[in-house]
Amino acid sequence: MQINVHHTRTRNKIQWQRKWKGFGRALISNGDGTFHHAVAPVLILGQCMTLLPVVNILNSNIRTVRFKIFSVRCCYSVTYLLLAGIYSALSIRWYIRKGLNLAYFANCVYMMVVYVSAVFFFLIAFRWQQVLRAFAACERFFQREYYRRQMHGAFRLSWKIRFICFSIFALAVVEDWLNYYSAYESNIVQIETCNRTNVSFWENFYLREHPHVFHLLPFNGFTIAWINRCMRYTWTYVDIFIIAFSYGVQFRFDQIFCRLKNVQGMVCPINFWHDMRVDYVAVSELLNFLDDQFGHLILLACANDMYFIATQLFNGFQRRRAIANYVYFWYSLLLLMFRTLVMLYVSSGVYVASARPLNLLRNVPSKNWGVDLQRLTDEVSSGENVLSGKRFFFLKRQIILAMAGTLVTYELVLLDQVKKIPDSSTDCTYF
Amino acid sequence: MQINVHHTRTRNKIQWQRKWKGFGRALISNGDGTFHHAVAPVLILGQCMTLLPVVNILNSNIRTVRFKIFSVRCCYSVTYLLLAGIYSALSIRWYIRKGLNLAYFANCVYMMVVYVSAVFFFLIAFRWQQVLRAFAACERFFQREYYRRQMHGAFRLSWKIRFICFSIFALAVVEDWLNYYSAYESNIVQIETCNRTNVSFWENFYLREHPHVFHLLPFNGFTIAWINRCMRYTWTYVDIFIIAFSYGVQFRFDQIFCRLKNVQGMVCPINFWHDMRVDYVAVSELLNFLDDQFGHLILLACANDMYFIATQLFNGFQRRRAIANYVYFWYSLLLLMFRTLVMLYVSSGVYVASARPLNLLRNVPSKNWGVDLQRLTDEVSSGENVLSGKRFFFLKRQIILAMAGTLVTYELVLLDQVKKIPDSSTDCTYF
Amino acid sequence: MQINVHHTRTRNKIQWQRKWKGFGRALISNGDGTFHHAVAPVLILGQCMTLLPVVNILNSNIRTVRFKIFSVRCCYSVTYLLLAGIYSALSIRWYIRKGLNLAYFANCVYMMVVYVSAVFFFLIAFRWQQVLRAFAACERFFQREYYRRQMHGAFRLSWKIRFICFSIFALAVVEDWLNYYSAYESNIVQIETCNRTNVSFWENFYLREHPHVFHLLPFNGFTIAWINRCMRYTWTYVDIFIIAFSYGVQFRFDQIFCRLKNVQGMVCPINFWHDMRVDYVAVSELLNFLDDQFGHLILLACANDMYFIATQLFNGFQRRRAIANYVYFWYSLLLLMFRTLVMLYVSSGVYVASARPLNLLRNVPSKNWGVDLQRLTDEVSSGENVLSGKRFFFLKRQIILAMAGTLVTYELVLLDQVKKIPDSSTDCTYF
Amino acid sequence: MQINVHHTRTRNKIQWQRKWKGFGRALISNGDGTFHHAVAPVLILGQCMTLLPVVNILNSNIRTVRFKIFSVRCCYSVTYLLLAGIYSALSIRWYIRKGLNLAYFANCVYMMVVYVSAVFFFLIAFRWQQVLRAFAACERFFQREYYRRQMHGAFRLSWKIRFICFSIFALAVVEDWLNYYSAYESNIVQIETCNRTNVSFWENFYLREHPHVFHLLPFNGFTIAWINRCMRYTWTYVDIFIIAFSYGVQFRFDQIFCRLKNVQGMVCPINFWHDMRVDYVAVSELLNFLDDQFGHLILLACANDMYFIATQLFNGFQRRRAIANYVYFWYSLLLLMFRTLVMLYVSSGVYVASARPLNLLRNVPSKNWGVDLQRLTDEVSSGENVLSGKRFFFLKRQIILAMAGTLVTYELVLLDQVKKIPDSSTDCTYF
Repeated sequence: MQINVHHTRTRNKIQWQRKWKGFGRALISNGDGTFHHAVAPVLILGQCMTLLPVVNILNSNIRTVRFKIFSVRCCYSVTYLLLAGIYSALSIRWYIRKGLNLAYFANCVYMMVVYVSAVFFFLIAFRWQQVLRAFAACERFFQREYYRRQMHGAFRLSWKIRFICFSIFALAVVEDWLNYYSAYESNIVQIETCNRTNVSFWENFYLREHPHVFHLLPFNGFTIAWINRCMRYTWTYVDIFIIAFSYGVQFRFDQIFCRLKNVQGMVCPINFWHDMRVDYVAVSELLNFLDDQFGHLILLACANDMYFIATQLFNGFQRRRAIANYVYFWYSLLLLMFRTLVMLYVSSGVYVASARPLNLLRNVPSKNWGVDLQRLTDEVSSGENVLSGKRFFFLKRQIILAMAGTLVTYELVLLDQVKKIPDSSTDCTYF
Repeated sequence: MQINVHHTRTRNKIQWQRKWKGFGRALISNGDGTFHHAVAPVLILGQCMTLLPVVNILNSNIRTVRFKIFSVRCCYSVTYLLLAGIYSALSIRWYIRKGLNLAYFANCVYMMVVYVSAVFFFLIAFRWQQVLRAFAACERFFQREYYRRQMHGAFRLSWKIRFICFSIFALAVVEDWLNYYSAYESNIVQIETCNRTNVSFWENFYLREHPHVFHLLPFNGFTIAWINRCMRYTWTYVDIFIIAFSYGVQFRFDQIFCRLKNVQGMVCPINFWHDMRVDYVAVSELLNFLDDQFGHLILLACANDMYFIATQLFNGFQRRRAIANYVYFWYSLLLLMFRTLVMLYVSSGVYVASARPLNLLRNVPSKNWGVDLQRLTDEVSSGENVLSGKRFFFLKRQIILAMAGTLVTYELVLLDQVKKIPDSSTDCTYF
Repeated sequence: MQINVHHTRTRNKIQWQRKWKGFGRALISNGDGTFHHAVAPVLILGQCMTLLPVVNILNSNIRTVRFKIFSVRCCYSVTYLLLAGIYSALSIRWYIRKGLNLAYFANCVYMMVVYVSAVFFFLIAFRWQQVLRAFAACERFFQREYYRRQMHGAFRLSWKIRFICFSIFALAVVEDWLNYYSAYESNIVQIETCNRTNVSFWENFYLREHPHVFHLLPFNGFTIAWINRCMRYTWTYVDIFIIAFSYGVQFRFDQIFCRLKNVQGMVCPINFWHDMRVDYVAVSELLNFLDDQFGHLILLACANDMYFIATQLFNGFQRRRAIANYVYFWYSLLLLMFRTLVMLYVSSGVYVASARPLNLLRNVPSKNWGVDLQRLTDEVSSGENVLSGKRFFFLKRQIILAMAGTLVTYELVLLDQVKKIPDSSTDCTYF
Repeated sequence: MQINVHHTRTRNKIQWQRKWKGFGRALISNGDGTFHHAVAPVLILGQCMTLLPVVNILNSNIRTVRFKIFSVRCCYSVTYLLLAGIYSALSIRWYIRKGLNLAYFANCVYMMVVYVSAVFFFLIAFRWQQVLRAFAACERFFQREYYRRQMHGAFRLSWKIRFICFSIFALAVVEDWLNYYSAYESNIVQIETCNRTNVSFWENFYLREHPHVFHLLPFNGFTIAWINRCMRYTWTYVDIFIIAFSYGVQFRFDQIFCRLKNVQGMVCPINFWHDMRVDYVAVSELLNFLDDQFGHLILLACANDMYFIATQLFNGFQRRRAIANYVYFWYSLLLLMFRTLVMLYVSSGVYVASARPLNLLRNVPSKNWGVDLQRLTDEVSSGENVLSGKRFFFLKRQIILAMAGTLVTYELVLLDQVKKIPDSSTDCTYF
């Protein structure tokens, strides 16, 4: 028996070692330049916060990547959805009973948005294989020799996606820590001001931070911390996810542009232009598929970011006592704006990349002109290759200016409404 | 004689039975998938509120469907138009004499909009046969075998139109009931507060609700109730009507898309593309006809909905005492917003549906390319297949965002002007 | 001698009779359907207010219509420009010295706009022959048989232009009279209130109405009345003029549409499409010429109308004592809005008319397709056939909504600034 | 030795004379009509304020024009960048410490914008040869006989650029002088009011104008004056530079238009249309290159101008005591608006010029139609030949109206916030 156990253990250990090595190899290897390979670590990051519970993420065969109802990841997600649902519902009820002021209303919106996002990701998990297949169907065209050659030397797709996603996540972790520190400082201020002796430091801390929690039976401190962490990062992850697949599409348009750039001035056979058109249409189709699948996510992300920037800017006129509060507030606001800007910039970059070949096509001499070139030019110049929020708005560069202008107008109009909200750190009542 | 009478009665009874059976059969039968068949119950609904007085609505032969000056329906409509005209004129005069505050002004706008809508529908009745003929001219192309086959299994046009239209109507009926209940509760509150003994409950009720009526001689309680009901539902019916014909057009675009989807990747003869183009142009022409005929109705509906959402949102800051008033107000506002959203979403869906074939056309191999495909692509991508409010605005998805943004700006600007209007349920003066 | 004189008189009389008869004949005759013939009475109207001093307006030979420096009309215009220039300059100086409040500033803007308009019209007079030649170059294509036939029965170009222009002018005359009557009533009120006996009624009237005049030496009452009349009507005439030439172009697009409508479904030779294209391009070129020549006038008219609607709406919140003031104010504001709307509607109608043939072209069977049809379709659908204000904005139907939305926003924002300006009719100080 | 020195001196003198002669000749000569020749004096102007340190600007061989790290100009620029960097950083720190009011914040923005502009120009200097080469590559097509002939008689490119740029600069010099004079007058007022005897006039002057300077050790009066002058003119120079290269491109589009105009109505060989297309695409490509290179500069310039117009308009409601302050303020504001308008008008003129050939192309008879003409028409009508601010906004004429509308809205909204800021000339405290 003991030998057996030992044997099993050894085998497990070997398996684990192999898994880890595979993990490392999968991540560091050049891979085959597919979106699936590039986005895998980002998905793992998401799965840590219970999002997108699909199995076999690191397997290079996309057919094995699928939603599996009886897997650890799925259980983890379902548990979170259940607990977070109850938690959010109870919190919102508490906020409504307390009377909805601006801050409480913003909290309710935040909870609902985050929960809806989590549900969206859960639903996306069902269709994740479909998404990967759509990517694969497009990327099949880009496995050919001339496209592969381009990739040497260039800053590769996978590192681009991973770098930007993990950077934003790291900044969000810093924000989370600042939030904690700011609450800690406020707590010290309050205890000193109010001369509290009947509660310990940590009791007071939790009373201040989660006043609505003590009316909720089924939760203990650790569960609440976990749910709050997940919610906070989910909020950020929506933007990260949009950035990831935007880069995935943009990269293909860039490859087409590079290839056209390389043959500039050369006489190309009719076949070449036919191939180029087919490649372009394939990417265009992928873009349409993504727009269809993730349009509601883009809509949610933009509405959410806009709402919170507007609310926070409005809160910016409020006075704060502790320096930590001050630092946290501005870091948080600037990060939110930076994240929103990056998301909008990258996703509108798809449109820019899709339109870039136009000038090269104009330069093609007329003697090579033909149906394929004509159609390709029409397709490039149609301006339809663009991500959108369910077609309510289109992610072109101009949208950034339009959003900024709207925000400035709203803030200027609301300037009259600014009232100094009392600093809560000197408020000694329990909630 | 008696036998004769009995005979006549029996015959009448048999005729009625046949009529009812025909009615039932006409409604439930699959029909021929025409717009005429689909929209018939919606028209009957409208005729209950005196709108669109055309005869033979349930007859499958569209040539018999026409405006008939000496019919019961027409008399009904004309009577309503006369009485409602006098009623509105007298009411508006009363409101103006009382001094036009925001609420009174909104009432005047409401009466005028509703009356103008009723007149519009009366005028549309004259041209209804023309409208049906335009639909029939387009639908002729869609009676062919391959289009018919599509319809099995799909959620059919007729049920789609009927379901959404009757749902919205049902919600409006609930709103009407809530309105009544809210007035009933306010009445109880007032009688208690003011200690009224000289008037009966119902006398007080009518004095509160229709103060302007007691200066108008030719009306009794029942007539006023009937006119008010008709006006209230006419307001909703404009949106229902727009939804109905929008679906009628959108369904044809969808059919074309489905057919193109089915032949994707197959080699099609030149004839096929010619047919597709002719079909597409036929729907496009129908759309233009509708845009021309109902543009003013769309303009009216949008202006009306925008104005009332703005006014009601502004009123939202007011305090209410009775819970029934509270429920009624928010239900009414949310229903108004929902109705507007659905109307805008469905009518802008026509544009989305008209543009969907573009991606399929791009995928057609170049060796099949020809004049017809080129023209079809041009027509699909032209972006002209869209409903509009007399070309003042175009019903694309972006318009929803533009309207929402404008409303938010107006409300924020008006925040300064919010003054607490005294709760009328504690006001004991007679009007 | 006497005989000679008598002879000359008789000759003169006969010449005058002939002239008058010619005048009548020229106006009533069907003419040749040219813009020159249609717009002549409108120009004569303008010349009564010193605008557009060109001679031989009623002569059917456009080569004789020209600016003539030594003509009565030119002297009349130059005199007006000189006197009005001095008058405006002195008035503006007076207003500035009094301190520029909102009403005074609006008066200054009014004077400058009107004067600049008069100068613009004087400059247009130089180029008027050029304008007529551009119209004639285009209309040459429309003198052919099939276009001439269309015109029988249709509401003709000339009557359309004349009717709308003279109607608006008549409404402006009524406004002028109301203005006079309102001032008259205010005067009576003031004399009664202030118990004035040292001045006669008319002295007081002029002191009230033109306080700035009594500091200006070179003017007597009649000159001032004449300059004021001319200025007031010039303000209206800019809009009338824009309406006139907009109709001139729109009519040609309508003719092309009618002709295409007539051949719908028929097989047309290639020549036919070539001719249609040439006709269309000719109108398009005329439109471009007009846009180039009168763009600054359109810009001025729109800016002016927008500014005054905004100012007057803002003044609308002010209280007025005399009923005549009240009637005048609202009549004046509504006329201004009506005039602006008509001008925008007609001038944006050019774009609508230019785009209408698109649907007919789509219906042309593909076997007739050729270069000419392709180019015609491209030209119709390009959306470039549109009047503009020097390309700062394009006169499409949407602009009306955009302007209305901007005005509403401005008024809502300014609601806070409304202050009750004291009623000047009870103010007894002399200026 | 002495002879040698003398010899060297003589040689130097001769060299200098030759240089000056060359300078004069280079400027006055007709040159070869290149952008390089036209813009040279404008660059020299910029180099006086340390911007764009490239050598051999007047040399007609563009290969010698390059950034040289060990040149006087480069040292001059680097010195400025270092000193201005320190100066700005210290000033901003001082402003922040004093508490950021609206005026201080505007000062900080001004300093940062100017410094970033200077850095941008330094970076542009690296790529200046590349820019000139792009211009040369395009202009190669325009050295041919028929384009050269056009230029005689026409107001030439070089004089157009030089005239407008130096005019704006001259106006900026006047503004600078007014600023000085205004400060001088304020100083007199303050000394009189506050009865200051302990400081001399100039000491007080500097204390008032540069209060933050006396806390900065490494600067003396002259250095500060120099840095301030450079900063002030850099602010203006950004707009001047944009105007210069906009004209450079626009001129080429105009040349193409002129050439097409000349052949209107003539039968042209296929070769001709091929050449025209190649010429057009060459300019289009140049435009794209410039848009890519200077997009951030355009973005910066527009944002900067918008911000300062908004701020200054807001300050316009403030009272001023000394008449010199009054004159300076309004001159400065009007110049800023004029400069912005001219910059926007000229740069949006590129788009207008690029679209002008469209009407001529429509007039080409169909028998000459071919691939080249079709492609040329498509390219002209695509609307892509436009400068932009990194594609966030496109410089068409409409943008001017949009900006003006936004500014008016902001100002109206901010009307409530206007508070009379005390006149600083009567404030006797030292900073």
